[in-house]
Amino acid sequence: MAKGITTREQDYSQWYIDVVLKSEMADYSPVKGCMVIRPTGYGIWENMQKNLDRMFKETGHVNAYFPMFIPESFMQKEAEHVEGFAPECAVVTHAGGKKLEEPLFIRPTSETMIWSMYKKWINSYRDLPILINQWANVVRWEMRTRLFLRTTEFLWQEGHTAHANEEEAIEETDKMVHIYQKFAEDYMAMPCIVGKKSEQEKFAGAVHTLSIEAMMQDGKALQAGTSHYLGQNFAKAFDVQFQDTDKERKYVYATSWGVSTRLVGAMVMSHSDDQGLVIPPKLAPLPVVIVPIWKSDEEMETVLANARAFTTDWDKLFFKIDDRDNIKPGRKFNEWELKGIPIRLEIGPRDCENNEVVVVRRDTGEKVTMPTNGLLPKLEAMLETIQSDLLAAAKKRMEENTHIADDFKEYKKAVKTGGFYKIHWCGSNQCEDYIQERSKSTIRCIPLDAEPEEGECIVCQKPSAQRVIAAQSY
Amino acid sequence: MAKGITTREQDYSQWYIDVVLKSEMADYSPVKGCMVIRPTGYGIWENMQKNLDRMFKETGHVNAYFPMFIPESFMQKEAEHVEGFAPECAVVTHAGGKKLEEPLFIRPTSETMIWSMYKKWINSYRDLPILINQWANVVRWEMRTRLFLRTTEFLWQEGHTAHANEEEAIEETDKMVHIYQKFAEDYMAMPCIVGKKSEQEKFAGAVHTLSIEAMMQDGKALQAGTSHYLGQNFAKAFDVQFQDTDKERKYVYATSWGVSTRLVGAMVMSHSDDQGLVIPPKLAPLPVVIVPIWKSDEEMETVLANARAFTTDWDKLFFKIDDRDNIKPGRKFNEWELKGIPIRLEIGPRDCENNEVVVVRRDTGEKVTMPTNGLLPKLEAMLETIQSDLLAAAKKRMEENTHIADDFKEYKKAVKTGGFYKIHWCGSNQCEDYIQERSKSTIRCIPLDAEPEEGECIVCQKPSAQRVIAAQSY
Repeated sequence: MAKGITTREQDYSQWYIDVVLKSEMADYSPVKGCMVIRPTGYGIWENMQKNLDRMFKETGHVNAYFPMFIPESFMQKEAEHVEGFAPECAVVTHAGGKKLEEPLFIRPTSETMIWSMYKKWINSYRDLPILINQWANVVRWEMRTRLFLRTTEFLWQEGHTAHANEEEAIEETDKMVHIYQKFAEDYMAMPCIVGKKSEQEKFAGAVHTLSIEAMMQDGKALQAGTSHYLGQNFAKAFDVQFQDTDKERKYVYATSWGVSTRLVGAMVMSHSDDQGLVIPPKLAPLPVVIVPIWKSDEEMETVLANARAFTTDWDKLFFKIDDRDNIKPGRKFNEWELKGIPIRLEIGPRDCENNEVVVVRRDTGEKVTMPTNGLLPKLEAMLETIQSDLLAAAKKRMEENTHIADDFKEYKKAVKTGGFYKIHWCGSNQCEDYIQERSKSTIRCIPLDAEPEEGECIVCQKPSAQRVIAAQSY
Repeated sequence: MAKGITTREQDYSQWYIDVVLKSEMADYSPVKGCMVIRPTGYGIWENMQKNLDRMFKETGHVNAYFPMFIPESFMQKEAEHVEGFAPECAVVTHAGGKKLEEPLFIRPTSETMIWSMYKKWINSYRDLPILINQWANVVRWEMRTRLFLRTTEFLWQEGHTAHANEEEAIEETDKMVHIYQKFAEDYMAMPCIVGKKSEQEKFAGAVHTLSIEAMMQDGKALQAGTSHYLGQNFAKAFDVQFQDTDKERKYVYATSWGVSTRLVGAMVMSHSDDQGLVIPPKLAPLPVVIVPIWKSDEEMETVLANARAFTTDWDKLFFKIDDRDNIKPGRKFNEWELKGIPIRLEIGPRDCENNEVVVVRRDTGEKVTMPTNGLLPKLEAMLETIQSDLLAAAKKRMEENTHIADDFKEYKKAVKTGGFYKIHWCGSNQCEDYIQERSKSTIRCIPLDAEPEEGECIVCQKPSAQRVIAAQSY
C-alpha cells in the first residue's frame, strides 16, 4: 500500500480502480459515467488499435467513417435492435439554437446508419462483399459504470460487412472472433474461450453472437469482444437487396463485430499486481526506462553520459532516460513500476566503471546485472520472455480455475469464489434465468470447441448435449 | 464529362462535389449536414493522421481522450468562448430515458473540458508543460455545409498544451502552425501562407490565432489549420494555477491547435482535374494499380501470371492487380483515374512477350514503356517526381495568382476572379467589415514573414505598416 494501492486480497475492485487512477491511465470526468483516458492509458489503446487495424487490413477490411447521429426513425426499423438499445441512448433534441424536427440518437452502435448507406451502395453481386470497419466513439447510458470496463462514452471499432450469401457471412463472423482471440493471446497475453452466446445474451438484432471470454485474476469472466451474425435482419429492415448472378434480387447477409477500450481494463485485470500496472511488452508504448543514480553533479554527468553512450543507436521510442534531477531514484523506481514499464535499467557510477547495468523485470521483480556491451538484443529477448511468461501464467490460472460442476447447490457455493464452471444446460431461458437469479452468475458461452458430451441440465435435469461455461462476470 | 464530372471551367463548385462523390471519397448522409467518409476518402485521412501524429510525437506530444459531452455550465466559464460556440452546438437533453438535470453540449472544441481536467492535474511547475493532443469527432451546427470543407460533424485533432510561462506558450503556438505548414507542403503538396488572423477572425477565447492559408485552383483561399495562443484565459476561467520555482502561485499559459478532415477537401481542390481525383503519392493509400489486358482466357492467364511474377517481391500495400474479369480495361482505366491512383501500369500479351509494361502518370497522363526488369525503383522515383511536380505546380499557381492591390475599386473587381491580394490595412474592425461587405472577400491573415512596408489602408488611407493577404475564401 506504499503507493496508495489497495492490495488485491483486501479488495479486488478497489485495487483495480487504484491501479488505473494512480498509474494515470485514466481519470474520472466531470460528466457522470464518462472517463478521461490519460496518455498512459491512451498509448496502450493506440498500440491495440495499430495491431488490430493491421490484422483487419490483412484480412481485406477497409476503414470508413459514418455520422454519429442516428435519426430516431432509423433505430425503430429493426424491432429487437430498438428494444435493446433505445432505452440507453443519449438524445440530441436541440441544435444550432433550435429544436430539431426529429430527435437524433447518438450511436450506441452503427448498424442502422450503416445499413441505410449500404442501401445506396449495393445493387449487384459485383458490389459485394463490403468489408468496412469504423473506429469511433459510442454512447450507452449505463447506470453503473467502472473505468474502462463500462463507461457511458467509450471508444471502439465496429466492423460491418455485407455478403451475397449466408455461408460467407457466417464464415466472416467466425473469422473475426478468431482474430480477436488471436489478438488477445498474442498481444494482450490473455487467453480466451471462444463461444456462442445464449439466445438471451445475443446482440439485439443478431441471429447469433460469438464472443471471447477471458478470466480475470479474481476468477471472474470478462467478455472482451463480440462478433455477430446478423442474417438478413438489417437488410430487410433497410430493404437492401442485390441482383445475384442468377439475376434474382435477394436480401444481403450481414455481420458486425467489435472490441472497445474495455480491452484496456481487461489487460489491467489480467496482469497487474499490488505494485501497480503490468503491461505486456507488445502493447507497451515505452518498453524500457533507464533510471540513472547519482549523488553529486559530477556523478550525474558521468552517469548520464554513459547512459546516452550505450543507447546511442537504440530506437528513440524503445527507451527513455529519466534524467529528472528533482526526484530521487527510489521514487522514480516506484513511479515506473506503478506505470508498468516492462524493463527498468538502473545505472550508477560504479556500474559505469564496470560497463554494467542492473536490469529489473517489472513482472517478476527479478534483478540481473548485464554488460552494457551487446545489451539491446538481450533486452529484446527479455521482452519476449516477459510476453510469453505473462501468457503462460494467465493460461495456467485459467486452467487451474476451470472446474466441472454437476450439482447446482455445490456450483452456487463454488462460483462465488470465482472461476469458470463447465456445466450442463438444457438450453432454456428459464434455466438460464434460474442460474442467474440464484447464483449471481451467468452462462458465459457455449464454447465452439466443446466436445459433445451427453448429460443433464444442472437445473432441470433435462438432456444436454454439451457443457457450457458459467461464471460470475464483469 | 464522360464520367459525369462537371468541368472546372463550367462550374468549379459542382466539379468539386462531382469529384468527391464519383471517386467515392464521401457520400451525403441521411442526417442533414453530416457526411459519410467512404474508404477511398478515409484512407487518405488515415495517411494524413499517421504522418501528422508522427510529427506531433517527434515534438514531444502525447495523445489522450476526453469526453465529448460538455456540461452547459463549463461552456459559460469563458465569456468569448461561449459567445462564439454555444449558438452552433448540438445539445443532449435526454439520456437513458430521462431528462438530464443539466443539458450536455457535444464538443464543438474541447478547451473547457480539458481545462477542467488540467485543474486536477496541475499543481506545480513540475507538472508542466502538458503537451496533449486528441483525435476526435466534433460537432458544429453549420447552416451551409459542403462535403469535407464544412460539415456538421467532422473529424479532427486538437492539441491542448499548458505552460509555465508566456514565451514557451507563444513558441508552441508558432511551432505547431509551422508543423502544419510543413505537413501541407511535404505531404499534401500544398504551399501555404502562415499568418496571424485579425482580431475579429481569431478563435473565440484566444489572445491571437495563427493559421495556414492555401490557394485552391479557383484562386480562393482555404484556411487549412489554426494554432491559438490562449494566454491565461482558460486557466483563469477554470482557476488553474501552479506553484512556480519561486514558490508563487501563477496562472498557467495555454495553446490549442487543430486540423480536420477539411484537409481532404483542400487536397482535392488543390490537385484534382476534370478526370477526377489526383492524390499526392505520399498520401495515396494505393500508389500503383496494374490493369492487365486480355482477350481470351489463355491471354488472361499469361498476363496475370506475368504481372504476378514481376511484382512478387513488392510490398502488398504498394500495388494492386485489378484482375476483375467482368469489367473491360477501358472502364478500369477510367475508374482508377477517377480515384486518383498516382501510377497505372497497363500490361497486355505483347508487353509480356517483350517483358515490358506501359506506365501512365495520373497527374500528367504521360505514358512511357518500361522494362519490367528493375521496375520498382523507377516507379518509386516517378512517385517522388509526381509529388514534387504537384508541389511545384501549386507553388507556381499561388505565385502567379498573388497580386498587389492599392485601389479598392480595382481590388473589388479583381478579387472576384480569384487570387490572393496583398493590400494595406489600418488594422481596424471597421475597414475589415467594409472590405467584407463591399467585396465579398476577407482579410485572410497578416503574414508572419511579411516585410515591413509603409503604406495607406486600402479603405481609409490611414497608415499601415505592412501588407496583409485578402481573398475570397471557402
